[in-house]
Formats: sequence, C-alpha cells, structure tokens
Amino acid sequence: MKFVTAEQNGNAFVGIADTERNVVIHLQAAERAMNGEVTLPSSLLECIALGDVFMEKASQIMQWTETYFSDEYIYPLSNIRLLAPIPRPAKNVFCVGKNYVEHALELGNDSDIPEHIMLFSKAPTTVVGHEAVVLNHQHVTNELDYEGELAVVIGKKGKGIKKEEAFEYVFGYTIINDITARDLQERHQQFLLGKSLDTSCPMGPWIVHKSLIPNPNRLQIETKVNGETRQKANTEQFIFNIETIISTISQGMTLEPGDIIATGTPAGVGKGMKPPRFLKPGDVVEVTIEGIGTLRNEIEK
Amino acid sequence: MKFVTAEQNGNAFVGIADTERNVVIHLQAAERAMNGEVTLPSSLLECIALGDVFMEKASQIMQWTETYFSDEYIYPLSNIRLLAPIPRPAKNVFCVGKNYVEHALELGNDSDIPEHIMLFSKAPTTVVGHEAVVLNHQHVTNELDYEGELAVVIGKKGKGIKKEEAFEYVFGYTIINDITARDLQERHQQFLLGKSLDTSCPMGPWIVHKSLIPNPNRLQIETKVNGETRQKANTEQFIFNIETIISTISQGMTLEPGDIIATGTPAGVGKGMKPPRFLKPGDVVEVTIEGIGTLRNEIEK
Repeated sequence: MKFVTAEQNGNAFVGIADTERNVVIHLQAAERAMNGEVTLPSSLLECIALGDVFMEKASQIMQWTETYFSDEYIYPLSNIRLLAPIPRPAKNVFCVGKNYVEHALELGNDSDIPEHIMLFSKAPTTVVGHEAVVLNHQHVTNELDYEGELAVVIGKKGKGIKKEEAFEYVFGYTIINDITARDLQERHQQFLLGKSLDTSCPMGPWIVHKSLIPNPNRLQIETKVNGETRQKANTEQFIFNIETIISTISQGMTLEPGDIIATGTPAGVGKGMKPPRFLKPGDVVEVTIEGIGTLRNEIEK
Repeated sequence: MKFVTAEQNGNAFVGIADTERNVVIHLQAAERAMNGEVTLPSSLLECIALGDVFMEKASQIMQWTETYFSDEYIYPLSNIRLLAPIPRPAKNVFCVGKNYVEHALELGNDSDIPEHIMLFSKAPTTVVGHEAVVLNHQHVTNELDYEGELAVVIGKKGKGIKKEEAFEYVFGYTIINDITARDLQERHQQFLLGKSLDTSCPMGPWIVHKSLIPNPNRLQIETKVNGETRQKANTEQFIFNIETIISTISQGMTLEPGDIIATGTPAGVGKGMKPPRFLKPGDVVEVTIEGIGTLRNEIEK
C-alpha cells in the first residue's frame, strides 16, 4: 500500500494511492461508509503509531472498496493535491551524510569516506510535498543543490535495536530531496543550517509500506534536473546499509514511529561537477526510486 | 514570571513558580477558580504560542491569587515534581557550538574559533527536567561530559529577523545542560549522534520571561560537578550574541514559538581538562545562571 497525505478543498486527509487506477482512497471517509463510524486518526503520523492495528484496518477498508466503489471516498489522483506524507514530522528529519563512496569522493578525497555513520538533521519546517515549489533562497545562498535519497520511515518505538531486527521497526519507505545550500553548509561547519532552509526537504509522493519493498538495500535511484540525468545509482552501493543505520542510531537514542531517516545521496550532485552546476530558479528536479515512484519539485522562479 | 511544567499525582500542568514564597501556582486551576472556566491550554508550548494573550491572562491570574490564596491551586514547590518547562519540543533543540573563545581553545586551537555560527541539534527525546536522572549510557560511551548553557526560548514566529528586532521574538530564557558523549561526537563527525543520547538534555528548572532578564548577553554562568566549580564565565564572552544567533538562524529558516536555542558552553568541560575528567555514575551536575536559577541533575548510578 502507498500511503499519502492529501488535500482536497483545503482539508488534509490520509489516503491510499492506487497508482494502477490513478485514484486515492480517503481512508476515514471509506471507513465511515463501511462501518458508519471513524476510528482511524486523521494524520498519517498518528496512524503509523497505531502499528499493526492501522495496517489491519487499512487492509480491510481497501478490500471493501474493491467491491463498493464510490466517488464519496475514491478520488482521481489528478483532482487532489499531495502533501508530504508526514507534512509535519515530530522532530527533525535524520539524514545520513556521505553514504555512497563516489559521492564522498566527488566532494573531497579518500579521507572523506566515513568510517562511521555521519548523522545530521533537517528542521521540520523544511518539509514540503510532491510538486511543491522549493524556495530559491537567493538572498541567503548562491549554491542551492539537490540530493536524491531513499528515506526510511520508522514504524515502532525502539532503542538498542539489533541489525537483524531492524526491519521490524520500519514502517515503509519514501523519497526525499535533501536540498542543500552548499555555501552555508561549508561556512557553518555543522550541516544543520545549510540543510534547513524552508522548503528544502521535499518528501513523497507517498510512503510505500515495507511489505512491497523486499530489499531496500537494492533499489535503483535516479535524479534528473530539467530532464537530464544527474545521479544514477543503486542503494546496494550504500556504505552503511539500512540495518546498520537503524542499529547505530538507536544504540543510545530512542527511535519513534514517524521518525524519518534519509539514507544519503549518490554521486552526481551539482557541487561535484566541474564546474559546479547549482540549481537555478525554474529548474525542475525529479528523484525516482525503484518500487516507490517519482518525487518532482520546481525551484521558485 | 517563571513558567514551569510540573507534575502532581501523575498529571502535568503549566504553572508559575514563586521562588520567594516557594510555591507554584497551577494556572488552569487558578483560572477556573477566578473565572469559573478554563481558557488557557494545558501545555506551556501552546501557551507560548498564544503570545501576548497568554502573558496578559497569566498576569491577571497572578494578581488575583495575591488576594485569593488557596491550596486548591497554590502548591508548595517541595510537593511537586518539575518537568522540563517544554517536556517535548516540537522539533530538535537548536544548539550553537563553540560560542566562547576559551571553550573553542580548550578543545582545539586558534583554528577552532568559529568565524560563523556552528549550529547542530539534539533530538526531542533527549529532554528531561530539573532533578531528573541522566542515563549513564555506559554501553555506548566512555566519555560523557557536561556543558552548562543559557537557552533562549522563541515566542513568536519569524523569518529574516533583523538583529535589532531579535528580542521581539524571544519569550524567555532557561538553562540547558548539553550532555555530550565526546567519543561519539568525534567518531561520527557531525555532532547529532553524540549529542542525542536519551536524557542528555536536562532543561529548566523554569523559563524566566524576558521581562525579568534585561540583558541576557551579560549573565554569570557556573557549572559545578559534585560541588566543585568547573565552568565559570559570563555570557558577555559570547562570540555570537543572542541577536546575532537569532538573526543568522532565521535568515532562511522560520523560527517558531517554543523553539529552543542553546547558546553554547564556556570553558571548563571535562574533555578540556588534563587529564580529561568525564562524568561518572552518581555525579551531580549543577548549572547556575544569574537571574534564572540552578538546574541540578544526577548521573544514573
């Protein structure tokens, strides 16, 4: 199942995208039609926190809508606006830095290949959805750059998680474009400021449940700018795989449902080119990940 | 006014500490007694977001309780447990790194004195209150260290804030002990992991409203471990003062009510000593800041 947060007539709702039929099922509305009452919460963050209960109810509702089709709760994808699947995370988005060898090298040299996970974060105010406009921030940066990344969404609270249990704590996967102001990133040493400009974390278009992604450590990932391929890699090139990331982070810090961990970007960012090619107003960035879809955003004109 | 979040019989409430009379006024309970109804929210984060409306109501309630004294809503400080004033921030706690020259030097050399603000964060899962036990995390670190810091609490949403307007966006001030695992901080390069162990952000005992702190850029700050003074400085030694911090952060990132910014720690941390003196189980750390009070925490035995 592909979980979305979407907006219709100004109201946000949790839905399931059916990309074969090009529709979105409004979960609360369908539940009401099915049972006469609504038990599901109205935010995807709260739904995820319900754990298995949520997945069971969502499955029941989906099955029911296959028989009982109605435009009261099934909308054409083209009629709704997708927000970020978790429009307002309850904490900063965790991000792994330099998790592909080629990317570490394009920004430096052998000494930049990390021996241990580099972890930084993006403030929740950075998050926007698929097709949202990314501010160009020309008053603060001349070096706006893209970073296509696979993101893991945590489904269950955990601490001291072992690698072999890591996927039990995963809810699903989404795409993040870790938009970065390279000049701020360098000037301020720690990455937070250069990574936290408003709208600099496009996320979506949906969260794909883990059951549909048998091996997240082996997915094609590609980033295009104005249709031109800039990044093309496979997550099997991770320096630290998803189990290692989850286990390392959680050794001393509790992970919680709805936590988002971006897993790092492959080679091909604008700063790595000779000469560098940063994002310009009007540029369109598309990040495509196998089994998930395409996250598309335009830079403010 | 000194705003607290406190707990009595398992229920958290927003209160005002009167440290002359050693009591806490339960704001919602006093409002109900005064007006017969409750209009104030039940979390301090929501109260702060109300802006001037909250301050006016809190002042009215406080004035009224001076005449109408009752143990229905006025409790001895000794009978309640203080939580962190904002027990669960809505995003990571912002932290400025190396904001005192002597501290930058004790951990390095001249090249470690930053020319630009270094900003990192601590996950919201780190936050605990005054007198809470700090986990010793002996399974993940051998180098647990203290960092006494003045923290600014934002009161109003803002972006592109000018230095000369910065204090309009401040609600008040509190104390933070930015507990740090030095080995993790070094090993993982970016500070987030070494700064985000559970319970590693003691905060409190209260938020002092800005009206009571005429010049936050000139406050004595002192940290003691087991009664021995380790850090002693004045915030006039800041490399970047509070106006500069708020203005710099907000140039590209929206600040929101309830955001917390720790302003950096002075010289005297355990790692800076020769030989280093890290925190041991049972150690008691007290951070005292002029005009605010003392934040006291014990390391898990």
